[in-house]
Amino acid sequence: MLFASDNWAGAAPEILDAVLREARQFGPAYGNADLDRAVAARFSEIFERETHVFLVATGSAANALALAAVSRPGGVVLCHRDAHIVEDEGGGVEFLSGGLRLAPLGGRLGKLDVATVEAGIARLAGNRGPSARAVAVSVTQQNEAGAIYALDEIAALGALAKEHGLALHMDGARFANALVQLACTPAEMTWKAGVDMLSFGATKNGCIAADAVVVFDKGLAEEELFLRKRAGHVFSKSRIVAAQFAAYFADGLWLRMAAHANAMAGRLREGLRAADVREAWPTAGNQVFPILKQATAARLRRAGAAFGDWPPPLDDPPDMEADEIIVRLVASFAATEAHVDAFVKALRSDP
Amino acid sequence: MLFASDNWAGAAPEILDAVLREARQFGPAYGNADLDRAVAARFSEIFERETHVFLVATGSAANALALAAVSRPGGVVLCHRDAHIVEDEGGGVEFLSGGLRLAPLGGRLGKLDVATVEAGIARLAGNRGPSARAVAVSVTQQNEAGAIYALDEIAALGALAKEHGLALHMDGARFANALVQLACTPAEMTWKAGVDMLSFGATKNGCIAADAVVVFDKGLAEEELFLRKRAGHVFSKSRIVAAQFAAYFADGLWLRMAAHANAMAGRLREGLRAADVREAWPTAGNQVFPILKQATAARLRRAGAAFGDWPPPLDDPPDMEADEIIVRLVASFAATEAHVDAFVKALRSDP
Amino acid sequence: MLFASDNWAGAAPEILDAVLREARQFGPAYGNADLDRAVAARFSEIFERETHVFLVATGSAANALALAAVSRPGGVVLCHRDAHIVEDEGGGVEFLSGGLRLAPLGGRLGKLDVATVEAGIARLAGNRGPSARAVAVSVTQQNEAGAIYALDEIAALGALAKEHGLALHMDGARFANALVQLACTPAEMTWKAGVDMLSFGATKNGCIAADAVVVFDKGLAEEELFLRKRAGHVFSKSRIVAAQFAAYFADGLWLRMAAHANAMAGRLREGLRAADVREAWPTAGNQVFPILKQATAARLRRAGAAFGDWPPPLDDPPDMEADEIIVRLVASFAATEAHVDAFVKALRSDP
Amino acid sequence: MLFASDNWAGAAPEILDAVLREARQFGPAYGNADLDRAVAARFSEIFERETHVFLVATGSAANALALAAVSRPGGVVLCHRDAHIVEDEGGGVEFLSGGLRLAPLGGRLGKLDVATVEAGIARLAGNRGPSARAVAVSVTQQNEAGAIYALDEIAALGALAKEHGLALHMDGARFANALVQLACTPAEMTWKAGVDMLSFGATKNGCIAADAVVVFDKGLAEEELFLRKRAGHVFSKSRIVAAQFAAYFADGLWLRMAAHANAMAGRLREGLRAADVREAWPTAGNQVFPILKQATAARLRRAGAAFGDWPPPLDDPPDMEADEIIVRLVASFAATEAHVDAFVKALRSDP
Repeated sequence: MLFASDNWAGAAPEILDAVLREARQFGPAYGNADLDRAVAARFSEIFERETHVFLVATGSAANALALAAVSRPGGVVLCHRDAHIVEDEGGGVEFLSGGLRLAPLGGRLGKLDVATVEAGIARLAGNRGPSARAVAVSVTQQNEAGAIYALDEIAALGALAKEHGLALHMDGARFANALVQLACTPAEMTWKAGVDMLSFGATKNGCIAADAVVVFDKGLAEEELFLRKRAGHVFSKSRIVAAQFAAYFADGLWLRMAAHANAMAGRLREGLRAADVREAWPTAGNQVFPILKQATAARLRRAGAAFGDWPPPLDDPPDMEADEIIVRLVASFAATEAHVDAFVKALRSDP
Repeated sequence: MLFASDNWAGAAPEILDAVLREARQFGPAYGNADLDRAVAARFSEIFERETHVFLVATGSAANALALAAVSRPGGVVLCHRDAHIVEDEGGGVEFLSGGLRLAPLGGRLGKLDVATVEAGIARLAGNRGPSARAVAVSVTQQNEAGAIYALDEIAALGALAKEHGLALHMDGARFANALVQLACTPAEMTWKAGVDMLSFGATKNGCIAADAVVVFDKGLAEEELFLRKRAGHVFSKSRIVAAQFAAYFADGLWLRMAAHANAMAGRLREGLRAADVREAWPTAGNQVFPILKQATAARLRRAGAAFGDWPPPLDDPPDMEADEIIVRLVASFAATEAHVDAFVKALRSDP
Repeated sequence: MLFASDNWAGAAPEILDAVLREARQFGPAYGNADLDRAVAARFSEIFERETHVFLVATGSAANALALAAVSRPGGVVLCHRDAHIVEDEGGGVEFLSGGLRLAPLGGRLGKLDVATVEAGIARLAGNRGPSARAVAVSVTQQNEAGAIYALDEIAALGALAKEHGLALHMDGARFANALVQLACTPAEMTWKAGVDMLSFGATKNGCIAADAVVVFDKGLAEEELFLRKRAGHVFSKSRIVAAQFAAYFADGLWLRMAAHANAMAGRLREGLRAADVREAWPTAGNQVFPILKQATAARLRRAGAAFGDWPPPLDDPPDMEADEIIVRLVASFAATEAHVDAFVKALRSDP
Repeated sequence: MLFASDNWAGAAPEILDAVLREARQFGPAYGNADLDRAVAARFSEIFERETHVFLVATGSAANALALAAVSRPGGVVLCHRDAHIVEDEGGGVEFLSGGLRLAPLGGRLGKLDVATVEAGIARLAGNRGPSARAVAVSVTQQNEAGAIYALDEIAALGALAKEHGLALHMDGARFANALVQLACTPAEMTWKAGVDMLSFGATKNGCIAADAVVVFDKGLAEEELFLRKRAGHVFSKSRIVAAQFAAYFADGLWLRMAAHANAMAGRLREGLRAADVREAWPTAGNQVFPILKQATAARLRRAGAAFGDWPPPLDDPPDMEADEIIVRLVASFAATEAHVDAFVKALRSDP
């Protein structure tokens, strides 16, 4: 019943085997091992084009260093006000980029839309004097509210970004969960829709610590080399980190794990519905946001369940009673039907 | 014969077992798991006092974030000009500290001495106008030239630092190798000698990726929380990284591995001597710097040996012929007598 | 009829005389001249306590460097969302402070109140993990909406700040205009009400370029020395800049000029009222915000008037017709009754 | 006898007249006045091509913001180790550029030569891993040692820079003094010789505070807009600062003042020679570096002379007795023959 986050899970056996195998050998450090090169090539295969990948320690670092590639003096990133880069990363984007600022925008379900971003760009352009210039738009896929952008929504933002000379960044901490939900290819969800920089997260989906900045442009890649270095994110035993990605991509493991996590979230949704618990808003992927009575939440926690409270969104908050709260349940690759059923059973046993 | 660096080795079986054990379970993220707390407590035990530890992804991050704790506008760190923070970290200290500058000083065997540091402090103080102020001294133990500071040498620098209101930082990427060589306690080699911030490296000595900032002062610890966060160095599955430290410290594994690495370096030294190959300078710990003819180095590499060229030091460079170079050999926990003997044999088979 | 801003005015004759006098002599550079010291002493007199003053080139620099004195990793400044530091300074505070972030809050008439700031502090404290910590509250006196904090309003914010260990900063680009309006002493409006750092602006009130960071604490002053230096804001011929302040304070010139500017704004208000033009909101000091028909604004500009459009505030926007806009009129020390009357006459001549 | 620096002088009457004239009028702020535009156009005339100029408050800001235009992650500026940007600017370049580092190089008379810079570039390129990349070379004209680069020396460095894709920056705090000494055009001394960014200083040569970043490329100019803004260096009453430049360039005033300063330095040199005082090294322009007995220096100061001690250079230090020091004498536009003669007389009156 530990649904606090998908990063509460451990790592998949296949991932661990790969780590063990690589860790028993000697090999060049700092990304110069055969396995590092093989993983880089694998990314290019998966994305169906020349792709440049930079392993880093965390999703926060991936976001910050991805956006840093387009940092300029006065540069501003347009993003949703509930985005992880705004709320949870301690100023990482601002700091590791050497001064980017974030312009938080509203939008239903944690999603940006074209009109809002356009207005944001116009507002910056209208600024008195040269004090700010938009350089990028950032979206999260799947996002913090459990929503997933449709391909045409990404493409529309991508087109808008290009029109204004901006880069499009995707925070893909839960990339695989969105991908299997949309049943599309990595290429379709990224560069074919206009994405320039991707934070590719595998940690939440069954790895130990496997996050990466992915860029499609050679010029951006050259910047990343130096950006990652000065941020202290170049693993010395990089090949052991790379081993996680190698196993992650082998035989579609990553997609199977994400599909499983999503299915477990679906089972949670069904259980909640059956128990007449309403969701705060509709979600896809592996996150669910039920509205619970505070007493129920407390009782579930006493029974061993783990989950977090979630603040009501500023955009379209659900109707709630005074004694109700929103909580977030996240299903991981390691969630089982038994976990879900135990949770639902505990929920229904309300006196 | 892979002596290029100790980070070319893999990880010890005990470390891998611990990772596996922890990775098979669920647990709180971001450092809030029981194991995170147990490891923190273990550090306090090992250092015989309240100690604050912050896991980070790399030794470079550990150095930068350790020094960042005492960063101030105009702040300058006095260090050896051959130090890793000067030569190899891509401006990481300067960047992650928000603007510290490095004042590189000379000194035999890569070591700072009191007179040199005192002169460096005086030079900064004498600067025209308030443009720079010393905030810290940084030493490497064991250092980049394979030398190890004696306890009284550290204590002398520590006393000097205190006298001038400066912090003393120790880059301990090879902390254990120095510790077993000196046969002293961690407390003696650090805070008892005046060290305020320690970069504690376990990666090179048998872990996968296990580096940490260690500080002894509560105020510095509070800064670290925010410094590490904004640098994107807070692992989500922190407990799996912590597992490495738990195993590292269990039953003296870390000291055994370091002692073994040092012994293998000692065996290398003997082999070199027997082969009439001279060392560029005397070393202790697990690094050796022989002077080889370029042809010999090339031949050894063709035979499968791995090692790096090393630039002659600016201070007291050894006498060398035009066709000679200095190379660095580093023995790791995983080096074997067979590795060493094969290398020496290859060396002696010079036609 | 040039009411676009008080920085469209030139400089007062007394100020110019002082500049000339000083510029005809030799004298030590970088703040070491007798006049630099005399001006510093004068600030202490005026503020009735030991005061530390740092001349800088602009009001933006004064704001940024004042706040920078309390910058810490993860540090956040609570301020109004319409504040100059948010809207107009190109990221100067964030940049020159080495990474402070701004938390923009709402509030009527561009003013912060205790409840809003308290909620803002609570929100930051409740952040998931150590990603942000409040370090300062910033108010503008007189502010961007032409409003002036009453002494007890400042004192309430000052008390709140102290309670939470935060510094209170005052953007005093129009310090004198507020001071004469409140008919209080500089001490009462600043440190006696809890202000720690003050941006003291004299440029808008009759000087050429005379802005300063003023701090009351010795520790903050030491930081300022280095902060200003690394920002390139130490004038070499500092004494000629200091000359402006010397004349500014002599014989109450600064108060006379501010009182005159405020009176001219009052005359504008009367003229608008007589012409049945309504103000968007009530103001004090030397700024007035009438609501004009777009056609009227255009006509006035054709007639030679200069003023800027002003965006409707997010908090309590006035009722406006579709063809109406808000404009800002600022009266300076150099505005004359003739200027005002010409403007009002042009306004009333609406066909 | 006040030869401590040329910034100990005041301002020229013509400069002051222009300031007065402009300060008596109203006019648009932030660089939008007619005079701002006229001065910008004048720079283009003087440099015989489209030139972009950005007024800033100090020479330090000009240097930092000029170099910042080519800042990139990992970026390094090659410069002389005695350069003002290394020794005197409190980390301004590093800070205002968002992280450039300085690679200090040696060289006689404070000058860089091609071989040294080439070696510096090679050393950076040879760095282990992508930790540093050269982005610019910086020279000072006239430099800190009173030396002036010949046109072909600049051109050689410019060609080298281009060859390696680096920008060439010139610190022109004493631009006019060098220019009249070389009897060449501003174009010849800058862009025709490969200079991309110029710190153009007029403060030391008769203005109050008149420094500027000058760039010849439109792309660099766009960066400067935002760089200057976030550094707080956009004067509101910019037109009054611009007035100084207008007068500076009118009727060749700037060249006359510089020629006079150089001539006074020449008279000093003659006086020293006649008094058998040797110069520490040969100089041109308006700086002279005699070797004095400490007792003599003390005596001169007691007699009212002002000048600074100068540290012996690391490259080719002059032979000196234990009781001798090097001092620096700087002649300004305001130095008179009487000043010089009084100094020389005082010097010769040695008992």
